[in-house]
Amino acid sequence: MTDRVFADIEPIKYEGPDSDNMLAYRYYDPKRQVLGKSMEEHLRLAVCYWHSFAWPGADIFGAGTFERPWMPAQACTEDMAEIKLQNAFDFFERLGAPFFCFHDVDAMAVANTTQEHQRNLAAIADAMQKRMETGGTKLLWGTANLFSHPRYAAGAATSPDPDIYAWAAFQVREMLETTHRLGGANYVLWGGREGYDSILNTKLGQELDQLGRFLNMVVEHKHKIGFTGKILIEPKPHEPAKHQYDRDTATVYGFLERYGLIGEVFVNIEANHATLAGNSFEHEIATAVALGVFGSIDINRGDPQNGWDTDQFPNDVPGLTLALLEILKGGGFDTGGFNFDSKVRRQSIDPVDLYYGHIGGIDVLAKALLNAAALIEDGRLQKFADERYAGWQGEFGQKALKSATLAELADHALQANSTKRPSSGRQEYLENLINRFV
Amino acid sequence: MTDRVFADIEPIKYEGPDSDNMLAYRYYDPKRQVLGKSMEEHLRLAVCYWHSFAWPGADIFGAGTFERPWMPAQACTEDMAEIKLQNAFDFFERLGAPFFCFHDVDAMAVANTTQEHQRNLAAIADAMQKRMETGGTKLLWGTANLFSHPRYAAGAATSPDPDIYAWAAFQVREMLETTHRLGGANYVLWGGREGYDSILNTKLGQELDQLGRFLNMVVEHKHKIGFTGKILIEPKPHEPAKHQYDRDTATVYGFLERYGLIGEVFVNIEANHATLAGNSFEHEIATAVALGVFGSIDINRGDPQNGWDTDQFPNDVPGLTLALLEILKGGGFDTGGFNFDSKVRRQSIDPVDLYYGHIGGIDVLAKALLNAAALIEDGRLQKFADERYAGWQGEFGQKALKSATLAELADHALQANSTKRPSSGRQEYLENLINRFV
Amino acid sequence: MTDRVFADIEPIKYEGPDSDNMLAYRYYDPKRQVLGKSMEEHLRLAVCYWHSFAWPGADIFGAGTFERPWMPAQACTEDMAEIKLQNAFDFFERLGAPFFCFHDVDAMAVANTTQEHQRNLAAIADAMQKRMETGGTKLLWGTANLFSHPRYAAGAATSPDPDIYAWAAFQVREMLETTHRLGGANYVLWGGREGYDSILNTKLGQELDQLGRFLNMVVEHKHKIGFTGKILIEPKPHEPAKHQYDRDTATVYGFLERYGLIGEVFVNIEANHATLAGNSFEHEIATAVALGVFGSIDINRGDPQNGWDTDQFPNDVPGLTLALLEILKGGGFDTGGFNFDSKVRRQSIDPVDLYYGHIGGIDVLAKALLNAAALIEDGRLQKFADERYAGWQGEFGQKALKSATLAELADHALQANSTKRPSSGRQEYLENLINRFV
Amino acid sequence: MTDRVFADIEPIKYEGPDSDNMLAYRYYDPKRQVLGKSMEEHLRLAVCYWHSFAWPGADIFGAGTFERPWMPAQACTEDMAEIKLQNAFDFFERLGAPFFCFHDVDAMAVANTTQEHQRNLAAIADAMQKRMETGGTKLLWGTANLFSHPRYAAGAATSPDPDIYAWAAFQVREMLETTHRLGGANYVLWGGREGYDSILNTKLGQELDQLGRFLNMVVEHKHKIGFTGKILIEPKPHEPAKHQYDRDTATVYGFLERYGLIGEVFVNIEANHATLAGNSFEHEIATAVALGVFGSIDINRGDPQNGWDTDQFPNDVPGLTLALLEILKGGGFDTGGFNFDSKVRRQSIDPVDLYYGHIGGIDVLAKALLNAAALIEDGRLQKFADERYAGWQGEFGQKALKSATLAELADHALQANSTKRPSSGRQEYLENLINRFV
Repeated sequence: MTDRVFADIEPIKYEGPDSDNMLAYRYYDPKRQVLGKSMEEHLRLAVCYWHSFAWPGADIFGAGTFERPWMPAQACTEDMAEIKLQNAFDFFERLGAPFFCFHDVDAMAVANTTQEHQRNLAAIADAMQKRMETGGTKLLWGTANLFSHPRYAAGAATSPDPDIYAWAAFQVREMLETTHRLGGANYVLWGGREGYDSILNTKLGQELDQLGRFLNMVVEHKHKIGFTGKILIEPKPHEPAKHQYDRDTATVYGFLERYGLIGEVFVNIEANHATLAGNSFEHEIATAVALGVFGSIDINRGDPQNGWDTDQFPNDVPGLTLALLEILKGGGFDTGGFNFDSKVRRQSIDPVDLYYGHIGGIDVLAKALLNAAALIEDGRLQKFADERYAGWQGEFGQKALKSATLAELADHALQANSTKRPSSGRQEYLENLINRFV
Repeated sequence: MTDRVFADIEPIKYEGPDSDNMLAYRYYDPKRQVLGKSMEEHLRLAVCYWHSFAWPGADIFGAGTFERPWMPAQACTEDMAEIKLQNAFDFFERLGAPFFCFHDVDAMAVANTTQEHQRNLAAIADAMQKRMETGGTKLLWGTANLFSHPRYAAGAATSPDPDIYAWAAFQVREMLETTHRLGGANYVLWGGREGYDSILNTKLGQELDQLGRFLNMVVEHKHKIGFTGKILIEPKPHEPAKHQYDRDTATVYGFLERYGLIGEVFVNIEANHATLAGNSFEHEIATAVALGVFGSIDINRGDPQNGWDTDQFPNDVPGLTLALLEILKGGGFDTGGFNFDSKVRRQSIDPVDLYYGHIGGIDVLAKALLNAAALIEDGRLQKFADERYAGWQGEFGQKALKSATLAELADHALQANSTKRPSSGRQEYLENLINRFV
Repeated sequence: MTDRVFADIEPIKYEGPDSDNMLAYRYYDPKRQVLGKSMEEHLRLAVCYWHSFAWPGADIFGAGTFERPWMPAQACTEDMAEIKLQNAFDFFERLGAPFFCFHDVDAMAVANTTQEHQRNLAAIADAMQKRMETGGTKLLWGTANLFSHPRYAAGAATSPDPDIYAWAAFQVREMLETTHRLGGANYVLWGGREGYDSILNTKLGQELDQLGRFLNMVVEHKHKIGFTGKILIEPKPHEPAKHQYDRDTATVYGFLERYGLIGEVFVNIEANHATLAGNSFEHEIATAVALGVFGSIDINRGDPQNGWDTDQFPNDVPGLTLALLEILKGGGFDTGGFNFDSKVRRQSIDPVDLYYGHIGGIDVLAKALLNAAALIEDGRLQKFADERYAGWQGEFGQKALKSATLAELADHALQANSTKRPSSGRQEYLENLINRFV
Repeated sequence: MTDRVFADIEPIKYEGPDSDNMLAYRYYDPKRQVLGKSMEEHLRLAVCYWHSFAWPGADIFGAGTFERPWMPAQACTEDMAEIKLQNAFDFFERLGAPFFCFHDVDAMAVANTTQEHQRNLAAIADAMQKRMETGGTKLLWGTANLFSHPRYAAGAATSPDPDIYAWAAFQVREMLETTHRLGGANYVLWGGREGYDSILNTKLGQELDQLGRFLNMVVEHKHKIGFTGKILIEPKPHEPAKHQYDRDTATVYGFLERYGLIGEVFVNIEANHATLAGNSFEHEIATAVALGVFGSIDINRGDPQNGWDTDQFPNDVPGLTLALLEILKGGGFDTGGFNFDSKVRRQSIDPVDLYYGHIGGIDVLAKALLNAAALIEDGRLQKFADERYAGWQGEFGQKALKSATLAELADHALQANSTKRPSSGRQEYLENLINRFV
């Protein structure tokens, strides 16, 4: 087996909707202008290091199926870390994604102590920086893995043991600084173990306070080192924890309010996590926009019949059109972007399957962007909503919303003494309208 | 058919665990002292008017099955309202529950206009007050039904129409004042339509602002009229709405923070709503206690295989022991209590079935209270948790929680350079321990 | 209000994909040939009487919102039954759907006894027959409502009371004969109460035997009267029952095997019921085809975030493309068709909303049919599967499948002594391929 | 670390309900007579090898947390297999469970080829046989792992590749014969990969035929070698597959009918799999009993808020009382038993946690057995059901069930012309009754 598994694959190019080439883009045309920005600027696409390069194709009932030169099923040596890095960047560059994302442990050689960790991370960061400079791939965000090591079995920032909390602080410090050094646009925290397996052995209020303080320390450190990217939290309701504190966007919002973090910390919404939490993906985005905490997106999909994180590549153009619509209505990404936190299926064992996964996903996003832009330009959807709520723009509506007392409104209704009903919500009409654009 | 269907049933009494009488309490002994308070004071039990007296035994696929003198399947006349009231209080008094709860429309004759509504509500409140005075049953909370009438199909406080918002304000004003007049201990708002059926026709941020202002008006009016009970919101994720803004306790907390309502508004947690939201019931209670918003409980259960609100009577002693444990650890109820927001099954057509439902539910709560108190007195559960988190009480732990910077903690970990792992979480041991007390 | 609410609406016509008319078909062109049959013959579209004409727009928390001349929220009189019928057929004819479906009680005046039931059903059948003859709308299937009346609260064929079983037999006899008289293409049984609310009061084996015998009686009667349409069962896992015996297609298959009904009874698969059962819609169809029990379809959709039967109009072209693909691969409909068992949302109160719902749904099916046909003509999807399983067509594969013993195969593997792995399943590639056709 | 981690733990004994010893049984008293059999004979308890000895404490997001002398996170050598075996039997014997269960690969050293597999399995079976003879632990069932190795990523009996099907046949032959040699009471097949990840690349009907033939071969081989234990299939709806063909008991029943396996193959019901399939555990047992396919039980529990197989130790006495009731009503186990297919939590890292898990689980089953027996002796529950269905025992009921035609029953109802309603289902009464015994 050659060490460079993507050597024979040509860079992926835009060939248009009629192309029959399964290794080309049909919709993703990076420089195409859409609502005043290029597709590339709108989507800010990133490949994730972990699923595509560190995951061996294992699941909870089966061993890794992927045979790769960098041996993803084994503890990563320095040599293997180097081979993995070169392959990962071969892939990023040929795919044409402008960004990537990684956890510390995805890329570095395995470390058992903090000192070894510091050395190994620094070593791989050197190699990464070189390859980033030559190839031009940028870092959308970095993150520290605070969930895989046994030390974090009972939580990292919410560990019952302050020494483990300090270990977590160490990992975050190192990775936040590494992200800064590599010019990362954001820094993400996903708290897969920040929750509990059993409420019986858990001090919930104490753990929330720990997590609140931890986030504040991260924000303080960010400012201290001059990192200007955003700090992002990634909501998820459960898995691996029975219950995770960062359940969904609305829950994270309350947490940020409680610990004084509004304006400093934003959400990185994952599609599959949204649906695991019982929310639609577009709901999570619309909520984040409404609450002023929208940050970035991990784009994948779950399986509607399966109750765990399947992290499949997105393939649902109509659904993503609604997501893109909410993003565009909210003003689009600032420092965030679409990170493909998706993994090819365990049966998709060939390196070329990584291309199929990403090309399909990128084209689905590109088409959804075009659809959403067309809906905005069409204007009927927005017009319907504006007319529906028009009463709130009138004199009575403005008074009702801003200054009236309960008694004033009650007396108004008492005098009107009407039997008023609402007008049609026209859901079917609007769904048909959407279907004209997808 | 006689007009008073409970006439032949004797008051329900405590007979002890060995009683074989299915119409007696085996655990609920109102004056029994538990951890320094009587059972009655701990549980503050209430019967709900709607399920037990206004619901005809219909479901979404079938007509009402209950034949009652007050004709619950038909539009309520003034005569029927009176018969229903007398039967309801016959039941409350014979059961020995100290409290009841009601929506305006549960008890009053049907009204089509605000003026008729005001008259009919006042009329039934007069009759109710008399019966409360003679029988001694008290009002745990009142509430206005802002979801059944077609006018609220698109929401009440979140309606796109400010005139409907005013109707809702009218209903709340009337019912808040009625609750105050009847000596109610709390006032509840459940926003079953405060959400959306389709995000396509919804301005989410606008609706949140409407809801925030509405709640503030209610709080202002409460103070204006001198009502000293608590204002409570009841979280639920969906049904009838596709998505309800008051999803769960953590979501409501964020909403209260956003609109300046912390300290003024608390949560009325329903067991079935908690599980519909993907949370355990004890999680919702523990979260409310930790966030300082715990108010009251709607006690029922859902069916774990069914995805809608089945509102069954509680029957799970081990599960409720955990709920009572969280309540006791949080200091118990203040103005809140346990309201039986449960309905007998559609097949349970006899009036006596209402007794079986409530007696079983009350005894389950009483036994759970005894179990939880015994667990607290035993102390092992608390001791385990205290020891598990003991590190946070030490010098390093306190510094880590309160003042250390990320860099200080990271350097601490770097110097320690340890390979520390957590100690056993002992979940199975603790579950066995619980099983010794249930 | 006029008695004929659709009087002003013109017949809906095909205008092609570029039409901007929301009251026209963009894809449904009845006579267009697709894979050798017309669209009309492929889809066999039917409108359901119940949701569109008998349902008042109520939900479990709210009263009916639809104001119609036939007063759907009230007990149906003979006059109202007539007005409802004329409006329903006005709608069927203007929409251009070739079929409709109905339960006995959807169309007839309310009856309290069997004799009244017989008279009222016969009366409306007369009126219906006349309107069918003049307008040309045909009956896809008839069915008896064995779930709404209180008598069926504990089941119909599975009632603990043989007199209620006889009532059910009566209703089915009347409606089966009515369906026969009206030239219906099928007869459907949906057993919403054929299951249990509590296993504690249920004899599961006894009830299965009752249901098995009941179905056999229906089949015997069908043959006796010379009805040549198919008998269909509609699987659903629950709601209104906690558990329904006809859970899903595979469960129904086992039931039919057990009671000797294979070849006589087929399944009427509903999209929303499939997903409530934890299966994808295309899985249910593929299973029915593989097991030889495919019959007909109730087309609607559920809400993936809501756990009850929302019965929304279908709007998902990619998903329905997979469903149509399985139907076409299975040879298409015989006597079955697509029945729109969908209801406009409770907020969609205007009669025109019924058009939006059906037009959108019909166009989605038409587009999905075109897509599925194009996928079949393209051939790559089938070719991939054929090559994947090619080994089973070889000599060893055929022997392994048909005649080899465990020992022979085990010895074969022992001698080969290989470390064989599977080849890539190419899921992402195939999903991208599908996306080229939707 | 010593090689024998349980050396210091004394055999677990029965000490009665008042014992405060967490390492003693409070209810499990093996020789105690219950309804004419000893507890030991009723429960037929087994420990599983895989979760307790082969699983390293890993989850999908984290590495193994258990430090054991046999290194469960690493590929198993012959030496480690021996150490693991001795520890496993140390545990079985000290716990006092009469049975254990294992997959081939749980116990043996890793093998890459069929010949190596045959040698390694034979070697560990020799060692196992010796230890079984000295200690007296018996084998409840054996099974082959046809899901963990990459070769089975696309299925074993349902693989698209007949060579992999042959590999599976080899593993089953070896393990069936090994089970026979070790005196196993049953042989189990769990088809975790017998289903699909994507319907796009799957020939569903072809795979069902493969699986049907495979099972028939196993049955034929069983008879050929004279194995008199039962062949059992373990239903599960999904995970790791998106969809597994053996969804639940009713689905498996249909499959067995289709492939002529009724009377030869029975179900091994797992509690957690039942609930993942949307059924209650007691429903699955009652269904298996009613359909004549009840075999054995994998006892564990899922987490009602988590959508994957958590395999927790059972702790719900009321729930298991209903399960035991159905088992006792069905005549109890024949060759089957209760296998603890449960794993201690990933945080429960100490060897003693394995004791807490099993002791708690065993006591819960023992208490549930006592409760169910008391309910049967009380008789009220059965009496209620008998009276409810009494009509079916009368002349009319028997005729209705056995010989009447649809027309005869319809005419009966027509003549009676009644407005009959069902009597109360008394669900609340019955739930209260159950609560008197748990």
